[in-house]
Amino acid sequence: MIIQLEHQISEDEKKSLLRELDKLVKGGTEVSTQFGNYIVAIGRSGFDIRSIGNLQGVKDIHRVSDPYKLVSKKWKLDESTIKIGNNCSIGPDSFTIMAGPCSIESEEQIKSTVQHLVANKIPVMRGGVYKPRSSPYSFRGLGMDGLKVFYRHCREQGIKIITEVMMVEQIEEMYDYVDIFQVGARNSQNFNLLDALGGVDKPVLLKRGISGTIPELLQSAEYIFSNGNENIILCERGIRTFEKSYRNTLDINAIAVLKDRSHLPVISDPSHGIGVRKYVDKVAMASVMAGADGVILEVHEKPEKAFSDGQQTLDYLQAEKLYSKLMKLYKLREDLDQL
Amino acid sequence: MIIQLEHQISEDEKKSLLRELDKLVKGGTEVSTQFGNYIVAIGRSGFDIRSIGNLQGVKDIHRVSDPYKLVSKKWKLDESTIKIGNNCSIGPDSFTIMAGPCSIESEEQIKSTVQHLVANKIPVMRGGVYKPRSSPYSFRGLGMDGLKVFYRHCREQGIKIITEVMMVEQIEEMYDYVDIFQVGARNSQNFNLLDALGGVDKPVLLKRGISGTIPELLQSAEYIFSNGNENIILCERGIRTFEKSYRNTLDINAIAVLKDRSHLPVISDPSHGIGVRKYVDKVAMASVMAGADGVILEVHEKPEKAFSDGQQTLDYLQAEKLYSKLMKLYKLREDLDQL
Amino acid sequence: MIIQLEHQISEDEKKSLLRELDKLVKGGTEVSTQFGNYIVAIGRSGFDIRSIGNLQGVKDIHRVSDPYKLVSKKWKLDESTIKIGNNCSIGPDSFTIMAGPCSIESEEQIKSTVQHLVANKIPVMRGGVYKPRSSPYSFRGLGMDGLKVFYRHCREQGIKIITEVMMVEQIEEMYDYVDIFQVGARNSQNFNLLDALGGVDKPVLLKRGISGTIPELLQSAEYIFSNGNENIILCERGIRTFEKSYRNTLDINAIAVLKDRSHLPVISDPSHGIGVRKYVDKVAMASVMAGADGVILEVHEKPEKAFSDGQQTLDYLQAEKLYSKLMKLYKLREDLDQL
Amino acid sequence: MIIQLEHQISEDEKKSLLRELDKLVKGGTEVSTQFGNYIVAIGRSGFDIRSIGNLQGVKDIHRVSDPYKLVSKKWKLDESTIKIGNNCSIGPDSFTIMAGPCSIESEEQIKSTVQHLVANKIPVMRGGVYKPRSSPYSFRGLGMDGLKVFYRHCREQGIKIITEVMMVEQIEEMYDYVDIFQVGARNSQNFNLLDALGGVDKPVLLKRGISGTIPELLQSAEYIFSNGNENIILCERGIRTFEKSYRNTLDINAIAVLKDRSHLPVISDPSHGIGVRKYVDKVAMASVMAGADGVILEVHEKPEKAFSDGQQTLDYLQAEKLYSKLMKLYKLREDLDQL
Repeated sequence: MIIQLEHQISEDEKKSLLRELDKLVKGGTEVSTQFGNYIVAIGRSGFDIRSIGNLQGVKDIHRVSDPYKLVSKKWKLDESTIKIGNNCSIGPDSFTIMAGPCSIESEEQIKSTVQHLVANKIPVMRGGVYKPRSSPYSFRGLGMDGLKVFYRHCREQGIKIITEVMMVEQIEEMYDYVDIFQVGARNSQNFNLLDALGGVDKPVLLKRGISGTIPELLQSAEYIFSNGNENIILCERGIRTFEKSYRNTLDINAIAVLKDRSHLPVISDPSHGIGVRKYVDKVAMASVMAGADGVILEVHEKPEKAFSDGQQTLDYLQAEKLYSKLMKLYKLREDLDQL
Repeated sequence: MIIQLEHQISEDEKKSLLRELDKLVKGGTEVSTQFGNYIVAIGRSGFDIRSIGNLQGVKDIHRVSDPYKLVSKKWKLDESTIKIGNNCSIGPDSFTIMAGPCSIESEEQIKSTVQHLVANKIPVMRGGVYKPRSSPYSFRGLGMDGLKVFYRHCREQGIKIITEVMMVEQIEEMYDYVDIFQVGARNSQNFNLLDALGGVDKPVLLKRGISGTIPELLQSAEYIFSNGNENIILCERGIRTFEKSYRNTLDINAIAVLKDRSHLPVISDPSHGIGVRKYVDKVAMASVMAGADGVILEVHEKPEKAFSDGQQTLDYLQAEKLYSKLMKLYKLREDLDQL
Repeated sequence: MIIQLEHQISEDEKKSLLRELDKLVKGGTEVSTQFGNYIVAIGRSGFDIRSIGNLQGVKDIHRVSDPYKLVSKKWKLDESTIKIGNNCSIGPDSFTIMAGPCSIESEEQIKSTVQHLVANKIPVMRGGVYKPRSSPYSFRGLGMDGLKVFYRHCREQGIKIITEVMMVEQIEEMYDYVDIFQVGARNSQNFNLLDALGGVDKPVLLKRGISGTIPELLQSAEYIFSNGNENIILCERGIRTFEKSYRNTLDINAIAVLKDRSHLPVISDPSHGIGVRKYVDKVAMASVMAGADGVILEVHEKPEKAFSDGQQTLDYLQAEKLYSKLMKLYKLREDLDQL
Repeated sequence: MIIQLEHQISEDEKKSLLRELDKLVKGGTEVSTQFGNYIVAIGRSGFDIRSIGNLQGVKDIHRVSDPYKLVSKKWKLDESTIKIGNNCSIGPDSFTIMAGPCSIESEEQIKSTVQHLVANKIPVMRGGVYKPRSSPYSFRGLGMDGLKVFYRHCREQGIKIITEVMMVEQIEEMYDYVDIFQVGARNSQNFNLLDALGGVDKPVLLKRGISGTIPELLQSAEYIFSNGNENIILCERGIRTFEKSYRNTLDINAIAVLKDRSHLPVISDPSHGIGVRKYVDKVAMASVMAGADGVILEVHEKPEKAFSDGQQTLDYLQAEKLYSKLMKLYKLREDLDQL
């Protein structure tokens, strides 16, 4: 059960509400975000929620049977729009493309990519400065130095930045240089990191775990939301299966189901999702029709020279062609939705 | 290595060819189909294939490194078109919808479905008369009696029939009443059944196994082809994963990859693929963009009363809407392919 | 609900029983096996089963909530013993080792293997004459000719034969030469084959499907049982996972759970289960402690020359060492069970 | 390639070694641990390693083709022994049982558990004070307060403590109260945490990821080792599969393979591994025979009242019985290894 409080609820009204609640359910968690104040209560269900709904200071109340609560569409029917700075947002009524290299490698590379994005009106650049790598001996990213250069060139051109944060300590130092914090698949259940990102007022893109389920992803989102940050973007990036013909198995079904169960926007990552360059376009287009609100693509001037993930990265020409296809397809989707 | 023989190759030329081949590779399998005569040879590779290619009676020769040979695109670059009777075909330049109930239940049901298909210009009706069921106590289909009624009503209206064959003995009795033999996921590696269907001159739709890999599916297709039947349609129908939010996980990646590796047409089965009615349309549309040559859909007048799989079956209204969306989407795909 | 009938039930008693039953549940399936006559009824549960249990001709009655019925331990608490000819049986109070090559290759090979088995008092020889192979171009077994030689040498030495049957038509021709019919993983849900083996009065060893679940395996066993054959042995042979360090993942958990849910004996197949020779012994020993009633092992005089599966096959020396370890371990298990 | 340096290598010798190395391979990582100094070099392989091996200051040198290096048995053939304080160690020549509740809940619970362990001569107590939970609304552990009480009671009785660390910041505060830091399955690829634990001089038990592969687990261990800590214990705790009859699928195969590929000790976690109380004993015993160096068990005075994971937790009586079985079984394993 979720109770949304009126902004102007008085301390007395709140106390009286909590007292009433105590009689009915065992424990309630108070949640304060950028946008609202809530009480999430779990427990007994055999009573009329209107007895609480009618109290002073209560704005809205719903039963939510899902294990995730505030991110559930059973709580909030309208799809959420996540604002990325002033003139960019992710959610209904738009389709957002994010593109860029797997890793930030050099200033040259950043400049070249930014130019490519500007020319194609792509609003968000991706690029890792902290790289999770299976082997400790692999390239692990340029760190803060790289991020600052990344930031400077993007700001000059009005491009937003999405980059991965891997640990709590990095949040503060990265904060000024990041528009969207990305949580990678391996940290999808790093609950301390999720907690900490709940305390940040910038959007978080949360990737599904390598073998994570839908409810697990939504409960991880619930961590962020219940710690105070409603600006969450979900991301399907392929699951691990026994199929060896591709690196991962992009799960198109998850996109359709996440859009149905949660009000949060859903982004598809076809580059990791299938992990083979020549199939990225088809899988990206399939994601549009499954209902994705955008895609995040690996793009590099010379994929064969990329420090990481070159095999799944598009070059500029391939990328441009795909951008155009995606936007045309999105337009048709909008039309078909009217049928 | 595949050697295609000239139709008019003489016995002497063939003997001399085989003699030559014997010196180079260990064993060659002779394959005769509706459309051609081939020798598939596996073995040593360190020689110039032109030494064979130049022999009398040899039409074409290629090295094929895939574990599957005759169904590989390395052998045949052009996509195959499978003719279903006179005025229906599956392959490039068309998008084919097959629809109908999971199980054939009654004459009433058949008549109603045929009417629905005719009204929507759907050329092929699906419907099981032999049903593979986990439990021996479940409804297992109406058998040949059902098939004959199914056949009569479809023939009257020019609708083609696809239905599942489960064992070798059924092939002969079903032959006259079937346009496409369907091999279900559980029989995807029933090699005797595949062998036997190689001896039939009607098309076979072969479903991927429940946890089957791409190479396994293509090798199963190779069984049919190498036993004499080139008319094979591949079908992605969802794999088993640990996700419990849907019945199966339709693997969009497989569609893109199968189209790339084989010249055979690929059909998507979104109804089984995700197994939840309200998501079937999105998954079907995603399949189009992944490159499918068609879809096979479960449709029933009253899904909630269906003998089997009702939870994933569309009613007529839902189906009609989807047919229309799919054809519009296919048209756009054709346009985008020109970019 | 399962009703076991008295052997001497009269026709009148039976009719009256079915009439009574009709009032309470919808449909009952009559099952006659080598050992008993049963009625399996599925449906309503809100009545006192004693009202049926008290009728003339009823020997026993139980509610069985599992999707599988006659193979469930909820029906039959005592573990079943499967007799293999006169002086061999599988079940409680013994641990059975079956060993031999993946494929029957030659008379020499058979003689050598039989000698090895006799010397080590191994009662059952395995060896495929019909081989399911992913590729149509692979060796597919010596067929009936091989089986007859196999039979002759085993009979002379009192060794029992287990070999795979792949299709209904093979059952009759194989019948005289086989002691245990093996159903392979790929045919685990070949329901027509299971039906037909229900009509045979020889034991059937049923392997779990490549990605088959516990309930699916038990329902496949139910097919055999409900068609008349109670002599069923379950076999865990490894499932498909994403791990590439071994061929399959032997699922030790399944052995423990199958022993708990069903009264049928459970055999472990460590050779396929892990698929790498040097680990077979550890996995075999683990199977004993998980509760297996026996193991089936791939053994060959010269594994590196085997026609198939050599990489997971033990040579005679390795096998002998393992037999001895397994029997010592089984003895300890018996002792520990008394604690 | 790994080069182990002599302890007394001079700076000049080291410089000259690095200069020589630079000519041969691209980049070498210097690693200093409690026990040794190494250079791990990745790159070209076409040269005679003796040219380096003969240099002053080089103690040992090996090519290691595995993606993991220092934890590979190709580097170090002898199995490692991990000392836990003065009179407890994990590795060859012993079988170690760790037991205790999933979560530390109260002082009463700690005292009762310690008493149980002392009575049964179990040297290590498990118990979580920081709990990774799917839902933010679940009990997340007593934290440092709980740990301090846990510590006090264990120290009094000479019991060692293993408990989970979830983030870098916790390491320092936990350090004084912990004997083995446990890294949970969800943090198996939390590379920053692994890095930081490499800087600690206490043992780390590293669990396999929920769908982690063998090479991934060993590369995660390599993170810890290459950051300076050789005291690593590997732990198999069950993988996620599609089987719903148990919570996870304990992968016995992994135990056998890990023991073969790495010199590090391997512990089995049968409680999480299968996740159902009544099967824990069989799975634990199977683990012994697969080669485990110990087990970690969930034990609680009243499992049905445990705050978490009660369904897979043994009560004291069940646990005592199992301890005794495991030690008897281990003894037999030692004997069988001599055969």
